[in-house]
Amino acid sequence: MQTLYLITTGGTIEKVYLERTGSVANIDTKIDQYLRMLRLPNLRIRPTHIMNKDSLEMTAADRERVLQMVEQKLKHPAPVVITHGTDTLVETGLLLERHLRRLKFPVILTGAMTPLGFERSDGLQNLTESLLAARLLPPGVYLVIHNQVFPIDRVRKDRKRARFVWTHARAKGARRRAAITPRP
Amino acid sequence: MQTLYLITTGGTIEKVYLERTGSVANIDTKIDQYLRMLRLPNLRIRPTHIMNKDSLEMTAADRERVLQMVEQKLKHPAPVVITHGTDTLVETGLLLERHLRRLKFPVILTGAMTPLGFERSDGLQNLTESLLAARLLPPGVYLVIHNQVFPIDRVRKDRKRARFVWTHARAKGARRRAAITPRP
Amino acid sequence: MQTLYLITTGGTIEKVYLERTGSVANIDTKIDQYLRMLRLPNLRIRPTHIMNKDSLEMTAADRERVLQMVEQKLKHPAPVVITHGTDTLVETGLLLERHLRRLKFPVILTGAMTPLGFERSDGLQNLTESLLAARLLPPGVYLVIHNQVFPIDRVRKDRKRARFVWTHARAKGARRRAAITPRP
Amino acid sequence: MQTLYLITTGGTIEKVYLERTGSVANIDTKIDQYLRMLRLPNLRIRPTHIMNKDSLEMTAADRERVLQMVEQKLKHPAPVVITHGTDTLVETGLLLERHLRRLKFPVILTGAMTPLGFERSDGLQNLTESLLAARLLPPGVYLVIHNQVFPIDRVRKDRKRARFVWTHARAKGARRRAAITPRP
Repeated sequence: MQTLYLITTGGTIEKVYLERTGSVANIDTKIDQYLRMLRLPNLRIRPTHIMNKDSLEMTAADRERVLQMVEQKLKHPAPVVITHGTDTLVETGLLLERHLRRLKFPVILTGAMTPLGFERSDGLQNLTESLLAARLLPPGVYLVIHNQVFPIDRVRKDRKRARFVWTHARAKGARRRAAITPRP
Repeated sequence: MQTLYLITTGGTIEKVYLERTGSVANIDTKIDQYLRMLRLPNLRIRPTHIMNKDSLEMTAADRERVLQMVEQKLKHPAPVVITHGTDTLVETGLLLERHLRRLKFPVILTGAMTPLGFERSDGLQNLTESLLAARLLPPGVYLVIHNQVFPIDRVRKDRKRARFVWTHARAKGARRRAAITPRP
Repeated sequence: MQTLYLITTGGTIEKVYLERTGSVANIDTKIDQYLRMLRLPNLRIRPTHIMNKDSLEMTAADRERVLQMVEQKLKHPAPVVITHGTDTLVETGLLLERHLRRLKFPVILTGAMTPLGFERSDGLQNLTESLLAARLLPPGVYLVIHNQVFPIDRVRKDRKRARFVWTHARAKGARRRAAITPRP
Repeated sequence: MQTLYLITTGGTIEKVYLERTGSVANIDTKIDQYLRMLRLPNLRIRPTHIMNKDSLEMTAADRERVLQMVEQKLKHPAPVVITHGTDTLVETGLLLERHLRRLKFPVILTGAMTPLGFERSDGLQNLTESLLAARLLPPGVYLVIHNQVFPIDRVRKDRKRARFVWTHARAKGARRRAAITPRP
């Protein structure tokens, strides 16, 4: 049985429609009810909900809290999936990459362009992909979304097209290589 | 843009409910309409539908057709995903593993316990996982289902629990290792 | 607050897909979870589940049980909705019409061609329509399905087209007329 | 085959989520794709889309346009269903009631608290109910929503509870009575 830490922070993926105001907002975490739609017989998810923020409203202190939570979880190493608003997801991811040392498992950020449960939502797809990538990727910090896996220092959001794209510059120059072994 | 071959053979994942008889059956492929629910901006899927069979009715000749189709596709190497009934999926997978040589990409079999579009279906989850695993796994033949990745010679179906489980014996003794590099 | 009796008997509308056998069957009532998808702020539904039968397997004794249950409920008059397999729904409805006397509210039978929760199911539509028709129809026994309201002695199932159609003969010759008054 | 005029004006029922702005808005009509989820074998819907407005933004001229469209359609009498934002739906309905004379069929307004296709949406329920009520109600102007049928001069929106409630005063004093006859 694989353990996985799931850290939720808000973002579009968890937005809900508010009938009184006719708008969408981050009120509370709602990923749990969608996770129940997946079959995960060999995965023990340990969820932690730390904030309900549109990522455009996240402060430096908020990102610090995400980092601290990941560091705390990794005292007992296991893969981490973080759901996050897409607008500043890369910024938080880069902070994590700079500070997390000697990772034994991948840390995966994901989110959605349309909230979970809304028509044409990509939320459950991205969650499904992230939970699988958490089993397969080598240690490192990634964005997993729309059938793509980006090392966090290779990606930026293309807002007009509502998707993420590769950046050409690569900080460390070298390709990342690691062993991958499917295992029980 | 990554190319991927999708070979569909029937199985529970593609069954439909027939109103005249009140039963479920494999009539035609229906994966296309569910693939449209996924965002795959960087994946070019080339689908081939070869039969509409409950896998309990697949003959040796049917499995041979699957093998030949994979061999034909791999003249232009790319990852392969095969949707298949779960009852004899492992049998077909083992045939592929015995005959496919010098794979450059993974060949992934998947299926579902409940048809796509039925309440509590696992079909879209398994399809989503397989399309991501096709980007990440090293060459080899696998079953990808329910957030799990099984080398095809390490798995069997547990019918009572409607899931797949690891087998302890391992033909080749050694762990599979390979380089994994997320790339555009 | 309007009270309504909901009597469930099985039929296609409540069938589930069984993963072990790959077939559909009536195992238990499942209408409750679908009713929760409807907003019924002014309706108090009193559900009674009496059997789990494909209506082709209903016996004369089974139909008698349906009649007795309706008679028992109507000691405190209120509209009645009965979910039932479509193959012999009319037969049960005609039995009810022959025996129920001095109705003060409508008794509505409904069902589905495809089970609730399966792709393209008509179950929730028929349920929604029946719950509204229960507020509007004059006393009598009806089939409500697919945006149609049939007095029970004017309808037969057209199996080839998976729908119900009007019969031309009308036992009593006269048109049914009654007052209708939307009320709180 | 019954003809029915469907007039769409925008409102919450037709709002969509916009990925670029993270907000919901009335961009275009989307009821058609949801109507295709219903089985309406004996109904010929003639749709007319006249505007994409949140009903809080509807002007007196907009309401006049709705009235004129209904009057134009009723040159060939048939039931009318109008989808409309809930905030000023009653206002438009009262205008219709004041001006429509000698109705031969019901004119039904409906809408939704949550857009069609969003989790927990009431849109398809209200549409299903309105299409059935259009067959059953006597001539008059109504709101049909949440399993309730309100004569338009007896209802107001309770915004806090996101529902409609009966008003006690009744302009004309008398109860409406009319013949109802289910017919092919």
